[in-house]
Amino acid sequence: MSILVMKFGGTSVATLDRIARAAKRVAVEVANGHNVIVIVSAMSGKTNELVGWVNETSPLYDAREYDAVVSSGENVTAGLMALRLQEMDVPARSWQGWQVPLKTNSAHSSARIEEIPPENILAKFDEGMKVAVVAGFQGISPEGRITTLGRGGSDTTAVAFAAAFEAVRCDIYTDVDGVYTTDPRICDKARKLDRIAFEEMLELASLGAKVLQTRSVELAMRYKVKLRVLSSFEEMSDDAGTLVCDEEDIMESNVVAGVAYSRDEAKMTLISVADRPGIAAAIFGPLAEAGVNVDMIVQNISEDGRTDMTFSCPVDQVARAEEAMRKAQDAGEISYHELISDKDVAKVSVVGIGMRSHAGVAAKMFDALSSEGVNIKVITTSEIKISVLIDRKYMELAVQALHDCFELEKAA
Amino acid sequence: MSILVMKFGGTSVATLDRIARAAKRVAVEVANGHNVIVIVSAMSGKTNELVGWVNETSPLYDAREYDAVVSSGENVTAGLMALRLQEMDVPARSWQGWQVPLKTNSAHSSARIEEIPPENILAKFDEGMKVAVVAGFQGISPEGRITTLGRGGSDTTAVAFAAAFEAVRCDIYTDVDGVYTTDPRICDKARKLDRIAFEEMLELASLGAKVLQTRSVELAMRYKVKLRVLSSFEEMSDDAGTLVCDEEDIMESNVVAGVAYSRDEAKMTLISVADRPGIAAAIFGPLAEAGVNVDMIVQNISEDGRTDMTFSCPVDQVARAEEAMRKAQDAGEISYHELISDKDVAKVSVVGIGMRSHAGVAAKMFDALSSEGVNIKVITTSEIKISVLIDRKYMELAVQALHDCFELEKAA
Repeated sequence: MSILVMKFGGTSVATLDRIARAAKRVAVEVANGHNVIVIVSAMSGKTNELVGWVNETSPLYDAREYDAVVSSGENVTAGLMALRLQEMDVPARSWQGWQVPLKTNSAHSSARIEEIPPENILAKFDEGMKVAVVAGFQGISPEGRITTLGRGGSDTTAVAFAAAFEAVRCDIYTDVDGVYTTDPRICDKARKLDRIAFEEMLELASLGAKVLQTRSVELAMRYKVKLRVLSSFEEMSDDAGTLVCDEEDIMESNVVAGVAYSRDEAKMTLISVADRPGIAAAIFGPLAEAGVNVDMIVQNISEDGRTDMTFSCPVDQVARAEEAMRKAQDAGEISYHELISDKDVAKVSVVGIGMRSHAGVAAKMFDALSSEGVNIKVITTSEIKISVLIDRKYMELAVQALHDCFELEKAA
Repeated sequence: MSILVMKFGGTSVATLDRIARAAKRVAVEVANGHNVIVIVSAMSGKTNELVGWVNETSPLYDAREYDAVVSSGENVTAGLMALRLQEMDVPARSWQGWQVPLKTNSAHSSARIEEIPPENILAKFDEGMKVAVVAGFQGISPEGRITTLGRGGSDTTAVAFAAAFEAVRCDIYTDVDGVYTTDPRICDKARKLDRIAFEEMLELASLGAKVLQTRSVELAMRYKVKLRVLSSFEEMSDDAGTLVCDEEDIMESNVVAGVAYSRDEAKMTLISVADRPGIAAAIFGPLAEAGVNVDMIVQNISEDGRTDMTFSCPVDQVARAEEAMRKAQDAGEISYHELISDKDVAKVSVVGIGMRSHAGVAAKMFDALSSEGVNIKVITTSEIKISVLIDRKYMELAVQALHDCFELEKAA
């Protein structure tokens, strides 16, 4: 039995017409010989409406009731999709999370999937059912209460089903037609990638490319689920969208796969911090407690027992970070001369698994930025990524320059 | 443990404000010392929207998917009601039908309740929970699919819970403040009844008083559930609404409890039918097969082996009835000279358990109608009811005359 998982997001099932269009795609895959597990989101806007009602009813809500209310949108689309498929003579039925059952832990509103026993759905496939339409985003706790998986939960549901049923592929239908070398809105040479490695997608996802939720990519990587991102608003074809896969499945690839950016960054520098063992913990402990998401960290060379410590965080957390540092200074936990906040910076990164085996990527990147007159303020690197903090006004220029210098407009 | 069931219909939970108002009533009953089981409908309009989507998606829908979609509205209000109660520091949680579980048969869209095991909810009451908010109208089939109970299903859910939990009472909150001696819109002397017997309520319900669904009254009568109908838009008080109860619980009652009417009736007469054994079956068999709901039947005295047969049915079924009779005549199953259809009739009935022990009610009724010049076309009687078919134009006059002649404006 060849099982394919197809996931349709909220915009892809926003109206009865769109549900009908999505059903046609499912019918094509059934005609291609697949048994299909369809994961559906709620009609776009519905979940937000329900969340709004919950917040208005009870600002500090019981997450178990939140989940019971908010999960109902997916049940509606699952039933409607099954009905639409039946109208097209495709044997289908809907499944709510508790019916599968999709078992989760009890962390309501951000539950983790623990198990998806495939027996019930497989038994129906054996009886001749072709499509199982599953309400995404929801599961059942050990206590028998409805749980939801948190933001991006339907992507995660889809990947988890693909893993549990050893699906040939997991197709994520959305409103963009794939993963690009960079954001086409700021670089008109941006090119859609046919394939991208899990590790690259993870870096791009966490760097702000909003196509796939980080969690679903992690899960796909762990269980080696072939993940395809494609648009529900374009013609179907075998090479549509972008395949996110194991790096062994990518024959040729550019050294750099893509350029990512993050606009709303801030750089903060503590001037002349007393440099002693444990000083990093004394600084970053209070920041973590204050809910500041520290990203890049750079410590200057120490002189006379004092040093400068620079870090970046989202720009809307600057006030919180400043307060946390002031309190730590007042409490005698740290001592510094001055805290300088620069709220006009952006982060630009190049990502690519080819960087593991190619030297000189960093030098090439710095050269390209320098020849455009872009000053680099902070640098961090990982095995497959180099990120720099620059003045925000140069962000688009930098993205374009890097896209050019690594020739990302050309396929490998 | 004193358990009270409270049911709120769609208009009583139509907005977040109204849910909050309903929650306040629940909190009062908790303060009065009750453990409360609240049965909620969907916000008014929501179920119709979902039904519309199902019909548009699949005109000849799979009832199992219909149920999965249409039941979702109740889940939303159940969760919101539980949240609202928690905000008021009343320990509450929501239950969907399958969680209770409310077990039904597999007759999707009009399922019958088979069992409500009380253990799960009672265990929570023992732990200190005060309110179980249950999504009405829905249950779970032996196959583990969601079922719905059909029109009026939430009333039936409420009564079934009251029976299963041996509740002290089942309060049905709706948009009218009780059961009246007749429709106040056509008789301004109509008086709200404090109490009415199950049998009377059943006759009134089936005669068109739309306060309670017939099925829920039947169930209440069978299990001796005290049923109170009251408005969610008026002040709470102990004698609010109308109590539907066993006739032994009614100390004093009028001979006639109420006057009911049904506007859209038709009278059909088969002239000169060959009168032979089995002729009634030969006429009413085909009518039943054609889906005609025959109500009253009168057979005239036979002359020369031929007779006239008169029956009534809803006016929108006349064409169907005519066709069924024509076909039966063509097939040689019956023979008649003519079929006369009168589409301008209405049915007026007086109902009261006191009629069992009081003679002369029929005579008094016919007198009252005759002195207003109202001609009676057909009469039927049961132990506690007398119905007459009259010209529709006299309907309101007849209702008012009967209300006056039995002095229904006065309490017993």
